[in-house]
Amino acid sequence: MLDQNQVEQLQANLGYQFNDRSLLQLALTHRSVGTQNNQRLEFLGDAALGLIMADLLFINHPFASEGDMSKARASLVNRQALSALAKKLNINNLLVMALGERKNGGAERDSNLCDAVEAIFGAIYKDGGYEACYQCISRLLRKEMPTQSLDEIKDAKTRLQELMQQKGLALPVYEVENIIGEEHEQCFNVTCQTELSREISKGEGSSRRRAEQDAAAAMLTLISQQTSGEN
Amino acid sequence: MLDQNQVEQLQANLGYQFNDRSLLQLALTHRSVGTQNNQRLEFLGDAALGLIMADLLFINHPFASEGDMSKARASLVNRQALSALAKKLNINNLLVMALGERKNGGAERDSNLCDAVEAIFGAIYKDGGYEACYQCISRLLRKEMPTQSLDEIKDAKTRLQELMQQKGLALPVYEVENIIGEEHEQCFNVTCQTELSREISKGEGSSRRRAEQDAAAAMLTLISQQTSGEN
Repeated sequence: MLDQNQVEQLQANLGYQFNDRSLLQLALTHRSVGTQNNQRLEFLGDAALGLIMADLLFINHPFASEGDMSKARASLVNRQALSALAKKLNINNLLVMALGERKNGGAERDSNLCDAVEAIFGAIYKDGGYEACYQCISRLLRKEMPTQSLDEIKDAKTRLQELMQQKGLALPVYEVENIIGEEHEQCFNVTCQTELSREISKGEGSSRRRAEQDAAAAMLTLISQQTSGEN
Repeated sequence: MLDQNQVEQLQANLGYQFNDRSLLQLALTHRSVGTQNNQRLEFLGDAALGLIMADLLFINHPFASEGDMSKARASLVNRQALSALAKKLNINNLLVMALGERKNGGAERDSNLCDAVEAIFGAIYKDGGYEACYQCISRLLRKEMPTQSLDEIKDAKTRLQELMQQKGLALPVYEVENIIGEEHEQCFNVTCQTELSREISKGEGSSRRRAEQDAAAAMLTLISQQTSGEN
């Protein structure tokens, strides 16, 4: 069970008070716990986030093409961005999971954090309706919304490639580690190596392309952490 | 401009009256006409459809896994299903497009019909809000919603493969015709051949897997049309 104070703090951070707190509890329950877990809410929250971000981009960028809006949304709501948001909301300390998963670093794993944030959005949608979910998401992600023209937004792989070229270094190397799952729900696991980091970054996604984007975003985070560490 | 009677008929079929009819007009305007076209509304409508179908499945299948809900949604809202809906709504006769596109069969092309239906959902969302869009979509797609357990739903490729095996025929052959577009917005064009149809079916999608699913669904439609023609 969640600590009462923690629930209050999370609700304050979300700017949303749950009528039914069991939904919030469920959203924070990792699938390692059992069949009552956050995966169904995550499915719903992912879709809610998709529509709400689409609408915010539609409103704020009246002349952007659908292709640029789609790219902008992908750069705003990827695994990296959502797990960063999860950490800001302290979700890593609130996740309920089996001991084995926790010992394996599950509470800090991007995919678990990202699922939990999306499940919370799904829980708000169920608890308070679409409008409440809209308000919460736009409040939390307002600062991340692009202010420049959307056609200037570049995807993570492009940004990483340009960074390497700028520094006169070799291009990033992507490798598929493995592909798991049945055909209609495959998950690609990809690594990314660059001369700017000793660490290898990892990415996952439902296609090789998405997994590479994810790994590139993780590599950009690694590089920026190293750079800020040097300062 | 749309004929007034046609607008009335379409609104009756949708079960929705537009406050701002220029949104409906825009939703029916193919991109061949110019920069004022239905692509932005399509982006929004696609996302709205995704959330609304997710919610309907969530409500109607309280014990389904997220994987099964995701599969069920993909089988309900694919290009085949949406273009069939578009034809039921007579959208093929209402699409506004450049003469060249029309002469090339653009008004009957699945991708154009599918885009227009999604754009109409986007237009309703903008015109009447989320609830109005929810009502319209659930009314139009209620009959298509699965009543059986979701884990029994099979994707198009699986169904086609099983059909061929049942009849003791060779498995379908999928071939990538071409891949167009930049990396982050690639479109795969795939063909599907089977011993059950002289015609080749075509599919498109943002990954090879999706394009193959699309081609398999088109092949199943071809086969069922031939079978009903034989009766």
